[in-house]
Amino acid sequence: MLYLIGLGLSDETDITVKGLEIVRKAARVYLENYTAILLVETKVLEEYYGRPVIVADREMVESDSDSILKGAETEDVAFLVVGDPYGATTHTDLTIRARELSIPTTCIPNASIMSAIGAAGLQLYNYGQTVSMVFFTDSWKPTSFYDRVKENRTIGLHTLVLLDIKVKEQSLENMARGRLIYEPPRYMTVGQCAEQMLESEEIRGENAYGPESLAVGAARVGAKGETFVSGTLKELAEGADEVLGGPLHSLVLLGRRTHELEHVFVREFALDKGRWDEVWKRDYEGRT
Amino acid sequence: MLYLIGLGLSDETDITVKGLEIVRKAARVYLENYTAILLVETKVLEEYYGRPVIVADREMVESDSDSILKGAETEDVAFLVVGDPYGATTHTDLTIRARELSIPTTCIPNASIMSAIGAAGLQLYNYGQTVSMVFFTDSWKPTSFYDRVKENRTIGLHTLVLLDIKVKEQSLENMARGRLIYEPPRYMTVGQCAEQMLESEEIRGENAYGPESLAVGAARVGAKGETFVSGTLKELAEGADEVLGGPLHSLVLLGRRTHELEHVFVREFALDKGRWDEVWKRDYEGRT
Repeated sequence: MLYLIGLGLSDETDITVKGLEIVRKAARVYLENYTAILLVETKVLEEYYGRPVIVADREMVESDSDSILKGAETEDVAFLVVGDPYGATTHTDLTIRARELSIPTTCIPNASIMSAIGAAGLQLYNYGQTVSMVFFTDSWKPTSFYDRVKENRTIGLHTLVLLDIKVKEQSLENMARGRLIYEPPRYMTVGQCAEQMLESEEIRGENAYGPESLAVGAARVGAKGETFVSGTLKELAEGADEVLGGPLHSLVLLGRRTHELEHVFVREFALDKGRWDEVWKRDYEGRT
Repeated sequence: MLYLIGLGLSDETDITVKGLEIVRKAARVYLENYTAILLVETKVLEEYYGRPVIVADREMVESDSDSILKGAETEDVAFLVVGDPYGATTHTDLTIRARELSIPTTCIPNASIMSAIGAAGLQLYNYGQTVSMVFFTDSWKPTSFYDRVKENRTIGLHTLVLLDIKVKEQSLENMARGRLIYEPPRYMTVGQCAEQMLESEEIRGENAYGPESLAVGAARVGAKGETFVSGTLKELAEGADEVLGGPLHSLVLLGRRTHELEHVFVREFALDKGRWDEVWKRDYEGRT
């Protein structure tokens, strides 16, 4: 059996009891650590499980999945995924491959940022499609996310923006010389995201949102130091990171279809409550 | 401290290790069991936790939350929620009340149907807003969900439809006579939902979808007997329930913005693969 096991969002104790029992008995344990990361090191997991954990990078999962699936017809293989196993396309792929090999699969779900973001106080029912924001470079500023945000905003919905993480990346020079030296990991912050969103609005100019659109920044959702901060995109670009601290960050752009209860909950996190109230009353209150 | 603890979707072992540790030490343990239910009885939870569990019905949570919060300034109160704690509005409300009383709160997230539905094989990124379907009666057929589905379909997105559960409902007669006698619980099935969706399309007539729109029915997501079935809405209305078996059910209506990989994954569950392929090729393949 191939078990796809969600690890939740923060540390080794966020695994479910059911998931932990399977990990402790499985023949092999893999950890997918490139689409998302936990806030603890792999060795912490190994100690907690009492089992060696094989770190599966993108190459292994996408090009060498048969090594992961080897023997899973007769023994149990645990494939651990940060968050919920089916949050990323890659894992659908692995399940399809298992099917082709007649290997049964079981999914043990867990918290995903896509539902845990509910802790920011905006109703999950009012979220539209989720988008991803990648690190812009001088020459590469992909704004395809912008179309999705615009679609959500047009019908009044909130948008969850998932922020880029760069783990195990090589510099162009090291890549060219074939040196397996990796850059330090980089995690996009809410401030960077808000800035890139404003830059994208300037590039596209379709008024999907603006510097005064309200948003919530989130850090380490589901973890001990979980922190939220709210304000206009401009305020978040300038002041969010200082409040939020270290990774992982996410951002939610508010839609106009916003309930009074959401306002009460989210204004508590405002960088500037007076400014929040002003923009809220002008652009959001009572809109449907 | 008020702990809002997600229980996940199926049984007593779906709680996270972190959540379980808190439950076992908390001064009081409440279980919210009216917005969603687990597939096991409360007494199974009590035995597993080794703790008494106070069942909190809607009335207690909405009108008597101060009894839940009593003493939480100095001791730990665990409030257990099926799925993820912030899936429903009610719990935002409880947090706001705790804030007013200066009681700190911590959320322990867990799997929600909103992300666990990823196991049906449709990418979570391609879902729009989630809607709820209530039991229609002869005189009450609320089609407000229809507008939301139409919005999602217009921009090509999938729609998760959460199905009504009726727990601890009184008959009109018993209510009128003040008799606290409750009807047996009722859980909407995928077949009933598909039928009501088709009825709603007939009432509204705006072509948000039709009898040949593709959909996936899901039963007991995240539990041992997890089952999926796919087909046109008409096929699901007629044949889904026999395949799916007992509660809880959910339905996903496909959007046209559908990846080939999603097709491969979902056609495996088709009631009639030939028919699925035919409709897929005609109405979905290659649409953006």
